[in-house]
Amino acid sequence: MPRRSVAQVDADRTVTLRAAVELASVIGLEGLTVGRLADELGMSKSGLVGRFGSKQNLQLATLALAVEMFRAVVYEPAIDKPAGRARLVAICEGWIGYLGEPCFAGGCFLTSASVEFDAREGPIHDAVRVALDRWQRVLETEAAIAVSSGELADDGDPADVAFTLNAIAVGTNCDYQLRRDPRALQRGRRAMASVLAPSLRRRPATAG
Amino acid sequence: MPRRSVAQVDADRTVTLRAAVELASVIGLEGLTVGRLADELGMSKSGLVGRFGSKQNLQLATLALAVEMFRAVVYEPAIDKPAGRARLVAICEGWIGYLGEPCFAGGCFLTSASVEFDAREGPIHDAVRVALDRWQRVLETEAAIAVSSGELADDGDPADVAFTLNAIAVGTNCDYQLRRDPRALQRGRRAMASVLAPSLRRRPATAG
Repeated sequence: MPRRSVAQVDADRTVTLRAAVELASVIGLEGLTVGRLADELGMSKSGLVGRFGSKQNLQLATLALAVEMFRAVVYEPAIDKPAGRARLVAICEGWIGYLGEPCFAGGCFLTSASVEFDAREGPIHDAVRVALDRWQRVLETEAAIAVSSGELADDGDPADVAFTLNAIAVGTNCDYQLRRDPRALQRGRRAMASVLAPSLRRRPATAG
Repeated sequence: MPRRSVAQVDADRTVTLRAAVELASVIGLEGLTVGRLADELGMSKSGLVGRFGSKQNLQLATLALAVEMFRAVVYEPAIDKPAGRARLVAICEGWIGYLGEPCFAGGCFLTSASVEFDAREGPIHDAVRVALDRWQRVLETEAAIAVSSGELADDGDPADVAFTLNAIAVGTNCDYQLRRDPRALQRGRRAMASVLAPSLRRRPATAG
């Protein structure tokens, strides 16, 4: 059998992990076993073991890809916006879009993984927490800029702003996944907009 | 064997279901099987089958008790308050208390059940949805009174108020269960208080 190129190995790995993300988003990250994924992909279990080593490594790699996909859809499109309120508004727009049409069949991967692993100690619990801590810090950094620039009507604690936006997203995801009623997305959007209501004291320099 | 009284049968059923709620709050409602609960209680599987009939009946009865426990801790203490904003404030106070010290080992039972069953069709999915619909209506009824009495600073759509309070609670539960950091509860409380900020236009008739 000819040796595959590094690029081919990477591409195979990505295809495998995308299937793993899709499967885990429906059955849960704990249900994701090497055997089940091998069945799904129609490949041998030993081939997958060779690629990932263990169920836990597979779970961690799957989670890492899901985080990357979230970031690509929710955060990346917003980085062209000015830091502070404008960037938070753009993040929330991407976030609501993501909640309405998630890149995962089972809805927000991180929320499901958080609920699934919150009471279980170990590397996956820790990885979920690190990912959510990092996201909280992204939101908090932008909120701190918005607050210190006087951009928000309610100029409270930036950590509160970050927490509340995330809570609204988590609650919107749960509601929308259960009811499949698009009003949940509209309500989530309005709730986020209310947290980010612009200050009336300050006019943007570019206002007409 | 002497026949047990109706009261004894009811008491046994309650003890069994409390154990079922406790177990399901940790392992998930889907993991709750007659066999596993029988092990937990040190009783025979056939005795439990006789009492509940099937796994699904056991799951439905467990969910119903969890809803009743939530209602007793979050809603009942608030019904003495005047309808509208005052009652919503009392509900939120009870809610945050419940999230910090849930009557369930695994955190909010309804949130876990909602995430677990949102993509599965069937009677349990439907029962979760009915319970959450009913709760949404309770909140919406109080919010409608608060809005029509001009009690809220942000006098928007009562359904939005109900949705946002619930989303904040769901998000606070997920955060607190993952991080066990009491600041999540403080932030959840402040976020709810912000949704329920009193109108400045109206002074309560009882103000000193």
